[in-house]
Amino acid sequence: MTSFRYERFATDGAARLGRLHTAHGAIDTPAFMPVGTAATVKAMQPESVAATGAQIVLGNTYHLMLRPGAERIDRLGGLHRFMNWSGPILTDSGGFQVMSLAKLRKLDENGVTFQSHHDGSSHHLSPERSMEIQRLLGADITMAFDECTPFPATPAQAADSMRLSMRWAVRSKAAFVERPGHGLFGIVQGGIYSDLRAESARALIDIGFDGYAVGGLAVGEGQEAMFATLDATVPLLPEDRPRYLMGVGRPSDIVGAVLRGIDMFDCVMPTRSGRTAQAFTRRGTVNLRNARHQDDPRPLEEGCACPACRSYSRAYLHHLIRSEEILGPMLLTWHNIQAYQDLMRDLRAAIGAGRVAAFAAEAAAREALGDIPAL
Amino acid sequence: MTSFRYERFATDGAARLGRLHTAHGAIDTPAFMPVGTAATVKAMQPESVAATGAQIVLGNTYHLMLRPGAERIDRLGGLHRFMNWSGPILTDSGGFQVMSLAKLRKLDENGVTFQSHHDGSSHHLSPERSMEIQRLLGADITMAFDECTPFPATPAQAADSMRLSMRWAVRSKAAFVERPGHGLFGIVQGGIYSDLRAESARALIDIGFDGYAVGGLAVGEGQEAMFATLDATVPLLPEDRPRYLMGVGRPSDIVGAVLRGIDMFDCVMPTRSGRTAQAFTRRGTVNLRNARHQDDPRPLEEGCACPACRSYSRAYLHHLIRSEEILGPMLLTWHNIQAYQDLMRDLRAAIGAGRVAAFAAEAAAREALGDIPAL
Repeated sequence: MTSFRYERFATDGAARLGRLHTAHGAIDTPAFMPVGTAATVKAMQPESVAATGAQIVLGNTYHLMLRPGAERIDRLGGLHRFMNWSGPILTDSGGFQVMSLAKLRKLDENGVTFQSHHDGSSHHLSPERSMEIQRLLGADITMAFDECTPFPATPAQAADSMRLSMRWAVRSKAAFVERPGHGLFGIVQGGIYSDLRAESARALIDIGFDGYAVGGLAVGEGQEAMFATLDATVPLLPEDRPRYLMGVGRPSDIVGAVLRGIDMFDCVMPTRSGRTAQAFTRRGTVNLRNARHQDDPRPLEEGCACPACRSYSRAYLHHLIRSEEILGPMLLTWHNIQAYQDLMRDLRAAIGAGRVAAFAAEAAAREALGDIPAL
Repeated sequence: MTSFRYERFATDGAARLGRLHTAHGAIDTPAFMPVGTAATVKAMQPESVAATGAQIVLGNTYHLMLRPGAERIDRLGGLHRFMNWSGPILTDSGGFQVMSLAKLRKLDENGVTFQSHHDGSSHHLSPERSMEIQRLLGADITMAFDECTPFPATPAQAADSMRLSMRWAVRSKAAFVERPGHGLFGIVQGGIYSDLRAESARALIDIGFDGYAVGGLAVGEGQEAMFATLDATVPLLPEDRPRYLMGVGRPSDIVGAVLRGIDMFDCVMPTRSGRTAQAFTRRGTVNLRNARHQDDPRPLEEGCACPACRSYSRAYLHHLIRSEEILGPMLLTWHNIQAYQDLMRDLRAAIGAGRVAAFAAEAAAREALGDIPAL
């Protein structure tokens, strides 16, 4: 059996080139994980997700425990088989989404009781139940159960929330069932307060995890505060373990976080934007609903290998969106996942070549150009 | 250049095994044409449509003239290039849909003036404009412009409507620009009245078309009346030309029509049903929204080569539908198109083997079994 381990091949400043080995295969890092909330990366077949170069997808404990249910997925052979994804899967702990989606939440030391946003049925999550659900799903990477600190929060609120999460981290570690190739990540909290982030990082390192996530960012604090928090946090994390910045982000967020030593990312942005006519390109975002594209025979992005760019014109993509055809979200989602995977591939190559800072500057300059001029 | 021609390889009773050659390739008949209304077979990439064995798709003149516009598609290189379909395309004349979808229609001898159902803008269709639009789209098979006779209609109403369509057929033929590999089909009308159908068939044969369609059926008359109309009509059509039953139908309709000598079909049923959780199988239709599937690890249809059946359980398909995930319509549409193409392939094999009547009986017996029992 594969052991769960992180190999670091090269560094370039704080940026790291590496590989994470799991029970379902290896992940080249820095890596972006497409989000497969309800056991599907929305509007994509898993073969297509893999074709973009994505090696790992994320599943959401909160959604899956409610529908179709973790025990049901276990009976059906686990999440990999259920959704036909043979590569690694990371599941979140449910802590973040129970706070943002569930109704009538009641939080105490033990955990959270809440009502489903689907049907109002009552459910409970605790560190122990979150570990059990993620084991039933068959996650390669399990996330410790935490409370997502609201933003903004006073130092006292952020401290109380973080310390609860650290007590839950102890319980998560105790409840996690070790299996070869399966890892458990702790989550650094503490809001935008450096001293709390440091306290949280030390607490997690004392417990000991297979990887370390930075949580509670990209919640409204802005890129500058996010980068400052990373500057204060990442250097405290063990060099021999992977680092995951949760829920981030736009391409420039990812580039900046890679420069600061982050290895893993997830975000709904490429998939969600694909369903709202927004395409990510090296020259920034393009809104394909705009009438400027209606007669444009050029591809969305020259040189992109995705089917939206290989086989269709901007005029056609615009037509699909205006006609509310399902193929529109299908093609734009594929393009956006491809664009994110291409960014990660280019970042890995730049780190390997010792020129990641130059790459970041070039990427920012290209993005500042904006979309190609209309014909 | 390929000439537009029909080869007949074998007959079995009235059923015919053949091949239709067009500018964009050949079609094995009997053939089912998936409907690509707005320049996309809904929820499918064209590569996936082709992977089911489909060799030709249908485009709708009414929809495409309104959005994105026939002149625009022409400027962008034609419909094949616009929608990335390299095989043959048949376009309808717009006559049927202008009657069922447009607002404020005004019909006279010249044609129809109407308002778009999108934005109320005013448009005109006539035999000459329909031929022009279908030429701009680049159709391999162009349909004569006709009026779709309402159902029910009195003999006098059906006769008036049919005779108008026959005068329009003369004008369609005159306006059609001959090009190698491109064909024009006339449409037999006359409602459920055998004498009118015969009059219409004679009129069309006098004009001379590359193929003959039977129109105005599957509009509420029922399968028995439809088959009776085919029995009265098809024997009057030239044996050396393809015969197309428009807008039909369910699998049993197709089998019965093939037994009566029809070569080509189109229908929105497989694609539309794929978006409403209805799957076609050899044992009849299956509603995957039903909770009986929620724990069922079996494929939708054993032995089917489509990805929905190869890679997923009924439980997963049910989950996608309950979760309103786009992948649900994507997979079920693929399955349904595959099921229809498999039916056509089996019908062609049965005709070639001289056992199409036995095949039809076996298919009816299998369908009568109903879905596999729940676990």
